[in-house]
Amino acid sequence: MRVLGIDPGLRNLGWGVIEVQGSRLSHVANGIIHSEGGDLARRLVSLHSALTEVIARHEPDAAAVEQTFVNKDAVATLKLGQARGIALLVPAQAGLSVGEYAPNAVKKAVVGVGHAAKGQVEHMVRFQLPGVDIAGADAADALAVAICHAHHLQSAGRMAAALRGVA
Amino acid sequence: MRVLGIDPGLRNLGWGVIEVQGSRLSHVANGIIHSEGGDLARRLVSLHSALTEVIARHEPDAAAVEQTFVNKDAVATLKLGQARGIALLVPAQAGLSVGEYAPNAVKKAVVGVGHAAKGQVEHMVRFQLPGVDIAGADAADALAVAICHAHHLQSAGRMAAALRGVA
Repeated sequence: MRVLGIDPGLRNLGWGVIEVQGSRLSHVANGIIHSEGGDLARRLVSLHSALTEVIARHEPDAAAVEQTFVNKDAVATLKLGQARGIALLVPAQAGLSVGEYAPNAVKKAVVGVGHAAKGQVEHMVRFQLPGVDIAGADAADALAVAICHAHHLQSAGRMAAALRGVA
Repeated sequence: MRVLGIDPGLRNLGWGVIEVQGSRLSHVANGIIHSEGGDLARRLVSLHSALTEVIARHEPDAAAVEQTFVNKDAVATLKLGQARGIALLVPAQAGLSVGEYAPNAVKKAVVGVGHAAKGQVEHMVRFQLPGVDIAGADAADALAVAICHAHHLQSAGRMAAALRGVA
């Protein structure tokens, strides 16, 4: 199955698609959507249409979005929320289930510890997806979210199999 | 021309449409969209499709959204931002320009002062739109946003006419 990870942002939205076969992960595509248009509403339309195109092109089976918090100020958090609304909306409109993961959960899944540095996450993304060419930091974060969701789905699958074994 | 006002919220999104003919305002329709679905992504899809339907049915020429801030906490602000993203996206997808007004600007336009009480806003909305049947507090706020945008467009129109007179 294919998993889409999204790192939402109003100006730069990172995305990454990986293929999951059993416990084997491989890279499909990644990129950064730069929203266009001076006003907020046009930027959101631009994010919506570009993300819709990514899903149409790469046909993921599941999606996950990073649960980012901005503690700087309410204005920045509101802006991020608006971009995040689009990041959640588009995959759900395409009929995909959408997982949400806190940054620490993503780091723990990819690096093994919840308080990993940014560089460590990108390093482990490269290690787990050999040969990947990463479009930038936001795309690396998006691939990390996809890897986190893949691990979660694998555990859930193993759990279901174990429960079937018990039954 | 017809103006759509929106008071965004994740669970309850207020909307109101008014008709503007010169300096005369009249009520067209108003309502509250209750988002459905347990998870966030489904709620956003539900808001998106219901708001798209409102625009298709009432065919507004312009739209405006209240610039609400929640200072309670970052989680509440992020949630509101997600709903607000949809409120801005849908009219822009329909090709409408989307105005944004701070709550104080809306109160000033409708009541005359920036620090009016909630009850006063609804009272003045009823006064300016005779015979209106208001679906609830969120719909009253949305109608107030529409009235605020109508005043703004009227002033802009008078400004343009005055400038033409001067030229």
